[in-house]
Amino acid sequence: MAEKTKKSGGGLAGIVAGDSAISTVGIGMGLNYRGYDIVDLAKNSTFEDVAYLILFGKLPTSKQLEEFLDQIVKARYLPAQLKEILERIPVDVHPMDMMRTVSSFLGLIEPETKENDQYKVAIRLLGIFGPAMAYWYHFAHSGVRINEQTGPKDTIACNLVKLLHLSQTADPLIVRAVDVSLILYAEHDFNASTFAARVTVSTLADFYSGITTAIGTLRGPLHGGANEAVMQYLENIRSIEEANSFLTESFKSKKLIMGFGHRVYKNGDPRSDIIKEYSKLLAEKQPKFGKKILYQISEHIETRVVNEKKKFPNLDFYSASTYHQCGIPTELFTPIFVMSRVTGWAAHIFEQRANNKLIRPTSNYTGPQKLSFVPLNQRL
Amino acid sequence: MAEKTKKSGGGLAGIVAGDSAISTVGIGMGLNYRGYDIVDLAKNSTFEDVAYLILFGKLPTSKQLEEFLDQIVKARYLPAQLKEILERIPVDVHPMDMMRTVSSFLGLIEPETKENDQYKVAIRLLGIFGPAMAYWYHFAHSGVRINEQTGPKDTIACNLVKLLHLSQTADPLIVRAVDVSLILYAEHDFNASTFAARVTVSTLADFYSGITTAIGTLRGPLHGGANEAVMQYLENIRSIEEANSFLTESFKSKKLIMGFGHRVYKNGDPRSDIIKEYSKLLAEKQPKFGKKILYQISEHIETRVVNEKKKFPNLDFYSASTYHQCGIPTELFTPIFVMSRVTGWAAHIFEQRANNKLIRPTSNYTGPQKLSFVPLNQRL
Repeated sequence: MAEKTKKSGGGLAGIVAGDSAISTVGIGMGLNYRGYDIVDLAKNSTFEDVAYLILFGKLPTSKQLEEFLDQIVKARYLPAQLKEILERIPVDVHPMDMMRTVSSFLGLIEPETKENDQYKVAIRLLGIFGPAMAYWYHFAHSGVRINEQTGPKDTIACNLVKLLHLSQTADPLIVRAVDVSLILYAEHDFNASTFAARVTVSTLADFYSGITTAIGTLRGPLHGGANEAVMQYLENIRSIEEANSFLTESFKSKKLIMGFGHRVYKNGDPRSDIIKEYSKLLAEKQPKFGKKILYQISEHIETRVVNEKKKFPNLDFYSASTYHQCGIPTELFTPIFVMSRVTGWAAHIFEQRANNKLIRPTSNYTGPQKLSFVPLNQRL
Repeated sequence: MAEKTKKSGGGLAGIVAGDSAISTVGIGMGLNYRGYDIVDLAKNSTFEDVAYLILFGKLPTSKQLEEFLDQIVKARYLPAQLKEILERIPVDVHPMDMMRTVSSFLGLIEPETKENDQYKVAIRLLGIFGPAMAYWYHFAHSGVRINEQTGPKDTIACNLVKLLHLSQTADPLIVRAVDVSLILYAEHDFNASTFAARVTVSTLADFYSGITTAIGTLRGPLHGGANEAVMQYLENIRSIEEANSFLTESFKSKKLIMGFGHRVYKNGDPRSDIIKEYSKLLAEKQPKFGKKILYQISEHIETRVVNEKKKFPNLDFYSASTYHQCGIPTELFTPIFVMSRVTGWAAHIFEQRANNKLIRPTSNYTGPQKLSFVPLNQRL
């Protein structure tokens, strides 16, 4: 009965869909993970440290962190069946379809059970997403079958950089830039992908179904694709003059400039300055990948959009130039988002399950009423 | 800001998440698809007729229905790459993980594009889910590689029955029982799987991501697994006496009896009597599959639960004995639900996209406030 229901403004904006103790997003205290300011975490922590915090609710001791990294390193292992699937995935696919399929297929061959519980599956996915992505990427592009294991103490960021560059060593600044980006993308409350994962597991579906849902949801350009979209226009801009033409054109046609503005952060995304610093450091160091002017162009675009449109860069804007200078192919930006955000998704699945209630809203019916059935031979 | 938000009672119960013109569920007019009573549709239509109605908003003419069936028949084709994947899926998996992976993998090799648009993908999935499921089932159980094409005019129900029974012919009563069950399961407004699919595509993610999300969500025992759960207890009951023991035991321990009660239909599910009729007809005909007493036992359980617990059977209760008497393995009940409900999911994806707004609720933060970061070497 429509009278008994509450109507949301559309898209459930402003509707509280449940309690959560994982992060705060723009409720007067900026972005916090489990109560810790994102600025402190990005400055002082590693991604593994932060992932442990998000998953288990507190910062690990040195010993816990060491054990956690050990588990992640073991979880890098790519099963033969998964490699067979990865080798059958063409080069020209949307890489997020590949990630979604990896998650779904892994749920088939390593299902969640009482033994292989949600915590083990979460760590498995933290470990395997990077290697699976890199395996597909190199096989699809050049037929190379990589060995997913690098050093036994390599962090997720270090392993990823070595695998992507097919190198035994990794530049520490590049590793740290990727590490910080993983921290910044790890968790963001009830965004669409996280909320969708909670709806999925609210039926008591398995962990992989929740993550598969989240990947499919993150895939949409209104959610996860923004840093790729930024890179796509940056790649076509080779000078400050071209940046000005691009901006003039965009302002004139009132086109949205990707990487600016945010539904929640109206006065600037607290993550932007952090990742901007890495884009700048990489440029100063004469990057191995990309051109030094990429940072200058980015900064010029930021200045003009802030001054003339009063819109602030969000995390995605400087992530684009950062990743590019780290030698990461643009098509892998969103899959790397998955490698990080799987942490937040997992924590939300744990939380949903700990106090589960089926998530099932209602709709406002606007269709026809009581039509009389017309037999097939009498239809016009 | 918590003050500005509305709080739902948990699980978004009673919260209107959007407008919809596809079906009415328990808003004083029973279950209607596009304004037509489910009772009329189940009596007078075929599943293809109803699927067309749900997808396109009106009943098809004879010619439209014929073309629609032609498209579905063509959409049965199993690509070689998909067969390779299906052959790698072990026999002991949760078949819904297989269905989820089929949907995700098909999105890789036949992505949604401007050409291969949402309508084509919807029909492709309507056509392929049954054959893919049957291909996996027979290969996994006995190494048989089936030919997915049966007769060129075979409906989805007829094709399914022939493929499952590895037979050139199909019993008309069994085909009609399956056909009616597909009609009854096709659509049910903003249930959890449909709502989750809408959240996924609200980010402008592709069609397959929406369906993959829905399958993962339907997988949960609070949503799609109920008819399987009914069959699991019915299989252990061989007589009226054993049914009485089961009921006495369940009543005493206050155990939920699967197949009874419904969050929306408090005075009986309008679909139950329809499917009950087929369970009865199959029993009267001395079923080829299952025992005649299965229906008698089911009816006895219904009578006692209604009289003593005032709970009415829902669609899942008599679906169990119906499917069993149609020779359908219990583990395929929920995948067959997918074959039907993909219709409703598709219609909701079309509807969400036609007037899209990102679905992004908010949470009520209950975690710790402003903690000071502790360096790793100072943590206890």
